[in-house]
Amino acid sequence: MKLEEVIKARKRAARMLRRAHIAITPREEENIEISDFGLGDLDNVGLLVVIYENNDRYCAKEIVLLPRQICLEHRHPPVGEKAMGKQETFRCRWGEVYVYVPGNPTPQPRARIPEKYREHFTIWKEIILRPGDQHTLPPNTLHWFQAGDKGAILSEFSSKSLDENDIWTDSRLRRLPRID
Amino acid sequence: MKLEEVIKARKRAARMLRRAHIAITPREEENIEISDFGLGDLDNVGLLVVIYENNDRYCAKEIVLLPRQICLEHRHPPVGEKAMGKQETFRCRWGEVYVYVPGNPTPQPRARIPEKYREHFTIWKEIILRPGDQHTLPPNTLHWFQAGDKGAILSEFSSKSLDENDIWTDSRLRRLPRID
Repeated sequence: MKLEEVIKARKRAARMLRRAHIAITPREEENIEISDFGLGDLDNVGLLVVIYENNDRYCAKEIVLLPRQICLEHRHPPVGEKAMGKQETFRCRWGEVYVYVPGNPTPQPRARIPEKYREHFTIWKEIILRPGDQHTLPPNTLHWFQAGDKGAILSEFSSKSLDENDIWTDSRLRRLPRID
Repeated sequence: MKLEEVIKARKRAARMLRRAHIAITPREEENIEISDFGLGDLDNVGLLVVIYENNDRYCAKEIVLLPRQICLEHRHPPVGEKAMGKQETFRCRWGEVYVYVPGNPTPQPRARIPEKYREHFTIWKEIILRPGDQHTLPPNTLHWFQAGDKGAILSEFSSKSLDENDIWTDSRLRRLPRID
């Protein structure tokens, strides 16, 4: 991604947070993590993330999703001998999010996936999150999600984040973009 | 506490959350934890808490503080052989909070403590949290806090919560009220 695209995306995330009455500091705004997973298609695929805290014991983030933006299918495997894989709770703060987990496929899912990405989605059991709703994923559970038409804001509460170890169904992916 | 007082306090917390644009479900509202620490003086001393998640690895809560309400001085000791004591991050979402930690006492602290409780406060290094500000307390660190004149809402991100093990400077205290 070009640096100017990253800065534009950070401003967009900050506007969405203000609209949802979620306060962040100017320094947090400057450090919003813009992830396009290396696909260069941020409007469709990616995450805008404010990391509040990430230590050895717990992690808390605010995840901003643009309208219909998708976080692609992945899981958080065990890392190191004693670790169990990241466990995470998604809590919807604003907008609407469709989360997909292993299980019986939902007949008419709300997600809309651009044709070129379709092969990289293998699980279709849908959980709908609206403001105040939350869902906890056990460690190492495959999942993906998409925001509704207005975008969404999710709080993520979890054990330590080690995103660089994530395993993606589409093996080309990586978490953070190269910034030109 | 009388059950009707608990219900009244829950409604008050729910109103403050709505004012701050923080969504909770009807079930969460019914389960807001009202803690008066056994003192029966909730307007001055206590916490109104929405527990979003508390598992073996992490915990997330929304803490509602009434105007000038105080959480009395305490620490979270190690529990069990391998545990380290709870580590916690307070993030201000709404209002203003004065947090006190060990260190050089702040000359003119903003907290106002009713005379009858004064002897139970031993630390006076002040940290002011306004919306978007946060502070992380290492495990087993003595701390207390008071909301400003309008009350406050704090997100607490932490390792597992084991409140029943907390150690209070005022040894009469206990975490949860007896409900009559």
